[in-house]
Amino acid sequence: MPIYLDYNSTTPLRAEALEAMLPFLRENYGNPSSIHGFGREARVALDDARWRLAKLLGCNEGEIVFASGGTEAANLAVLGSARAGRVSEKKHIITSSIEHHCVLHACHYLEKCEGFEVTYLPVSRGCLVSPEDVRRAIRKETALVSVMWANNETGTVQPVAEIAASCRERGVLFHTDAVQFFGKREWENGRMGEAADLISISAHKFGGPKGVGALVVRKGTKLHPIIHGGAQEREKRAGTENVAGIVGMARAAELALAEQASEEIRLRALTEKMWGELSARIAGVHRNGHPEKRVGNTLSVSFEGVDGEALLMNLDLEGAAASSGSACAAGAIEPSHVLLAMGVPLALAKATVRFSLGRSTTEADVEPACGIVEKVVTRLRG
Amino acid sequence: MPIYLDYNSTTPLRAEALEAMLPFLRENYGNPSSIHGFGREARVALDDARWRLAKLLGCNEGEIVFASGGTEAANLAVLGSARAGRVSEKKHIITSSIEHHCVLHACHYLEKCEGFEVTYLPVSRGCLVSPEDVRRAIRKETALVSVMWANNETGTVQPVAEIAASCRERGVLFHTDAVQFFGKREWENGRMGEAADLISISAHKFGGPKGVGALVVRKGTKLHPIIHGGAQEREKRAGTENVAGIVGMARAAELALAEQASEEIRLRALTEKMWGELSARIAGVHRNGHPEKRVGNTLSVSFEGVDGEALLMNLDLEGAAASSGSACAAGAIEPSHVLLAMGVPLALAKATVRFSLGRSTTEADVEPACGIVEKVVTRLRG
Repeated sequence: MPIYLDYNSTTPLRAEALEAMLPFLRENYGNPSSIHGFGREARVALDDARWRLAKLLGCNEGEIVFASGGTEAANLAVLGSARAGRVSEKKHIITSSIEHHCVLHACHYLEKCEGFEVTYLPVSRGCLVSPEDVRRAIRKETALVSVMWANNETGTVQPVAEIAASCRERGVLFHTDAVQFFGKREWENGRMGEAADLISISAHKFGGPKGVGALVVRKGTKLHPIIHGGAQEREKRAGTENVAGIVGMARAAELALAEQASEEIRLRALTEKMWGELSARIAGVHRNGHPEKRVGNTLSVSFEGVDGEALLMNLDLEGAAASSGSACAAGAIEPSHVLLAMGVPLALAKATVRFSLGRSTTEADVEPACGIVEKVVTRLRG
Repeated sequence: MPIYLDYNSTTPLRAEALEAMLPFLRENYGNPSSIHGFGREARVALDDARWRLAKLLGCNEGEIVFASGGTEAANLAVLGSARAGRVSEKKHIITSSIEHHCVLHACHYLEKCEGFEVTYLPVSRGCLVSPEDVRRAIRKETALVSVMWANNETGTVQPVAEIAASCRERGVLFHTDAVQFFGKREWENGRMGEAADLISISAHKFGGPKGVGALVVRKGTKLHPIIHGGAQEREKRAGTENVAGIVGMARAAELALAEQASEEIRLRALTEKMWGELSARIAGVHRNGHPEKRVGNTLSVSFEGVDGEALLMNLDLEGAAASSGSACAAGAIEPSHVLLAMGVPLALAKATVRFSLGRSTTEADVEPACGIVEKVVTRLRG
């Protein structure tokens, strides 16, 4: 089996999560909106999953809106609050230049087609957004600030508490895309669900199934739905609920959060070891992102004089699965907007690999993985 | 076990579909956008499912956009084409007064918040939209006509071919919500995927899993995404694909379409038998919808002098699961907008039950089900 070092792209579904899902893929097939027994059984499971997830997040059950994934949840946060804000003439949004495309492209759409103005904040060389920059960018027409919790490419953890405080002080809504943070690292500042007005998460990033996610919507937050129809999810997200997926997400979240503290330490040590090996064995390597303020599982490395796409493909051939950090459905790898925003030169940005580790990764994977990287880089530079 | 007569709400997941899904809930967990082996394996499964579904629909693979369900697919059709139409000053939409809430509420949103004008066409007493009405309502600023294929409450099948012809003649986009038609009845007019420019379907209505659906988007149709982000689904729908769900949907579609013709005949006979029994045994009953132009599995019946909610709850207690026809997440049953649009008096509309049968329903269910209905109606009238 190849060594899987791409947990930030997706994770294996936890066996316990699948186990929890199976009854809802078999005998308990009711629609939670039906008033008969089949429906009530599904409704109970849905309510139970909502309650479990709310407990883990430290928020109210009524503050959770289930969605089809992190991308939809972030779109609901950004588009939904922008469109609600427009009603009171708030047509300005603040975000960062290192957000995931689900936030950036939603912002582009609001700029291009709905008359919004968007401020894209810069980041430091270490991939950090400055809370002071956020504060200065807020205007009276600002509808929303959206800054991700942990960056998917570098793992850098943003100063979410400080940004949230600035937003609260000025009465501006704050969304944080927590897709790469939730399940990876504890938050020292209290209940996670209180970190922002809107928090998006994705099940398949923490051992849950693909096709399901959630948005925490703090009570009283005005939001227009982006998918209209039935009265599901307190009229914030229409459509028959993906009962099995939601049940699986809640179970996976419980498991991930129970192991989170110890896994963070373990994976941080593994990525440090990996970086130590790579930098000792290969010349011209650069580590990207903040070395401490990060989720432990992620390591972004640039290899001078190597083409990133060729590197990834050769790693794959040799048995190590990693990623450039940006989804590339079209087949062409664009240089990472995150690395460019950090000031990484274009050539280096194109020569970057993101290694992201997870619960099945052990010390026994790191040594051979580093060996493969060394071999491939040496050959490509050859 | 209670008798399940609510297939239009949701259906059991087919065992074969679950079987097809399991590898993607276990070992094949890759993200289809990843370029390594894990990703390619998922990509192959996704492409294969797309190809199978396209073949069943008689359209091109590139014309299928996977979504999180019928509601999202219909929203993408309505909101996406309306917003694309707005670019060329087309701000008028035509739909019918009997659409599912996913279409109606999307239209309401466009009226209320995005400056669109919407024409809601009436229907006949038999629940039919008139193609002549559609033709007359089309203006040069019309961006879209959206008329459902089969109605979820009455089962009435609309004259989609004629409506499509009017739209084509006038160069107006046509969407049909085929959620209650696909998998239930063959289309005599050719390849189903060519019936309209936009066709929405939902997996859990034909034996597939909840949380997945698709929109057929005819080549060249301009559509703005409603969920922005990665380049998935040819940039029409962002977000990591629900691989297992999509694979399950394709398998369920194959099974449903293979049995469709025989099931239609069988279920039509069962609903006719059921109507025969009910009308013979209970006084003051009325059948809703067109008696011939319908999907065979659906039977809507109004019972004079009975409260619909009490009726449904008592049927449930006695072991028959049916529905009022409208989702009622809030717990309160609103009188059906479909029945009111057909001219059914309010009191009768509130006294209506939708029986919807499916592949597990047999003649052995119909007799006891009718017995339960007779008993409950008699008691409630007593």
